[in-house]
Amino acid sequence: MAETRDITLDELASLAYAVLRHNGFGADHTRAIAETVLAAEHDACHSHGIYRLIGIAQACRDGVADGGVAPTVVDHAAAVVKVDAGGGFSPLAFERGLPMLIDKARRGGIAAMAINRCFHLTALWPEVERLAAENLVGLAMTPSHAWVAPFGGKRGLFGTNPLAFAWPRPNNDPYVFDFATSAIARGDIELHAREDRALQPGWALDRTGAPTIDAHAALEGAMLPFGGHKGSALATLIELLAGPLIGDLTSGQSQQFDAGRGAAPFHGELIIAIDPAAFAPDTKDQSAAAERLFEGIVDQGARLPSQRRRAARRQTKADGFVRVNAALVDELNQLID
Amino acid sequence: MAETRDITLDELASLAYAVLRHNGFGADHTRAIAETVLAAEHDACHSHGIYRLIGIAQACRDGVADGGVAPTVVDHAAAVVKVDAGGGFSPLAFERGLPMLIDKARRGGIAAMAINRCFHLTALWPEVERLAAENLVGLAMTPSHAWVAPFGGKRGLFGTNPLAFAWPRPNNDPYVFDFATSAIARGDIELHAREDRALQPGWALDRTGAPTIDAHAALEGAMLPFGGHKGSALATLIELLAGPLIGDLTSGQSQQFDAGRGAAPFHGELIIAIDPAAFAPDTKDQSAAAERLFEGIVDQGARLPSQRRRAARRQTKADGFVRVNAALVDELNQLID
Repeated sequence: MAETRDITLDELASLAYAVLRHNGFGADHTRAIAETVLAAEHDACHSHGIYRLIGIAQACRDGVADGGVAPTVVDHAAAVVKVDAGGGFSPLAFERGLPMLIDKARRGGIAAMAINRCFHLTALWPEVERLAAENLVGLAMTPSHAWVAPFGGKRGLFGTNPLAFAWPRPNNDPYVFDFATSAIARGDIELHAREDRALQPGWALDRTGAPTIDAHAALEGAMLPFGGHKGSALATLIELLAGPLIGDLTSGQSQQFDAGRGAAPFHGELIIAIDPAAFAPDTKDQSAAAERLFEGIVDQGARLPSQRRRAARRQTKADGFVRVNAALVDELNQLID
Repeated sequence: MAETRDITLDELASLAYAVLRHNGFGADHTRAIAETVLAAEHDACHSHGIYRLIGIAQACRDGVADGGVAPTVVDHAAAVVKVDAGGGFSPLAFERGLPMLIDKARRGGIAAMAINRCFHLTALWPEVERLAAENLVGLAMTPSHAWVAPFGGKRGLFGTNPLAFAWPRPNNDPYVFDFATSAIARGDIELHAREDRALQPGWALDRTGAPTIDAHAALEGAMLPFGGHKGSALATLIELLAGPLIGDLTSGQSQQFDAGRGAAPFHGELIIAIDPAAFAPDTKDQSAAAERLFEGIVDQGARLPSQRRRAARRQTKADGFVRVNAALVDELNQLID
């Protein structure tokens, strides 16, 4: 087992802010990125937590990502907002476009926001949770780098292409899922490699296209989609809608743009917001029917997604500290020396 | 092997029209349903082909579904069309609402159509293909009956909840997928039971919640979602968006409404249409990037979805006949005696 260290939430936040500021991010980007990364760490989702700060800091330090650029919000069509992130990271771009997306969803019933030219190494669930907090249904997706082979293929073509969804629940946490369409998150493969742990069968191929459980071989080869040809189809949908549709890069194009630097994917993101009030006469009936569905899941011993994250969030809040990989904290501290 | 029979496309169409007219459907519903069922049969998708006419005919004959009702189209919000199918089957409702959905998608960039109070035993891909023919991206989903257990559960709660998607391709068939979020289509389980063939492991549970490969035990038990907890999450999304969101029944409620009759699911459907022209300055660039993605799939030996269906469609057209289960044709002929 890797050595761990307990650090308080204040120390954790200070560390995240310091890493970002010290590596070239302005105050607005620092706050927006830190909030997303800290939210993941509080949820014990280490693959999207402070571990991501290494790549994010490097992208800015190397001049690949712009740490100071102000995103531009454009009212593009009656139900479409476009946000040009201008080569910055996505959280600030999302934040700036959000009010117009909410407004358009409430006016029309459904609306879309395209974020273009952004770097995105963070989780999507904080974004759809923001929509749910406005009593809207949220759906978000983004390509990444060409790490995942199509079902029946041999080479990376799709990104891990996460899909996140939130359904607002009155007086309760929203129903939220956020899953990679790869069999496992890229960050998890990287963490397995860092800790020399074996992968599970069905997660990855080596560089020849043969199945492998070696995390290092997988990083040089390709990951596999979840759920066979259906997961592969869903990954394709995400490439198309959050790539060509919005005039942005596919995972393959993002990888070419990266040119071997190993930086965060540079790409776009599509967010769809739906206003339940625009679809049915009584949102109480909508909520009641949804709650019966959730009860039907839980009552038979199955779980709602995000329950583990929520439990971790409550625990973190109660504890006032998080338990993180000690070597990772040392590495982050070196970034602010 | 079950005995087969070759029948010409004209004979097939005549049979479908006769079954529908003879069992109470008016001319409009007959044409709309027959077109959908025949399209599936031409594509050699037997589980959604003329086999479905048995249940469709019975629903009308028994007075469960209304074979003559005219769907009502309502301009519900700037980006939302609602169609009340009034207890009829869905294809005519889709057809009647389609022009307004197309218009709203072109005006706003994205729009949604909710079809309410419909019976739906047919495939979704003909619907999203209609949107692609208008150069729109199409997404369609619907719950069914509570046949599918959530991941980690024991009892049916979700429908087979298909998700269909189409991306228009200039001078080519659109990119289309249409998959059940169950491990396999309900119709396939039924066909396995009719032919006493064993299921594959991972498809189903028996009535006690234990895994089974017996198709009859599966029909009394529950099916499983594809792709573990991720497929289960996707099935939940479809329940929510094509159920409570649009003020219609979940698969569990549809099953209760059915009250053991074994008729087609009575429920709603959500269709989302997106206009690529509203998102990017140049749709040629969008198409070119999408085509490179498709090439990247095919070039490494993987397949695009629907290739088998399209090949079957071309073959059917060239042959001028289809090969169908002989006992099924006999059964359908009895329905017009």
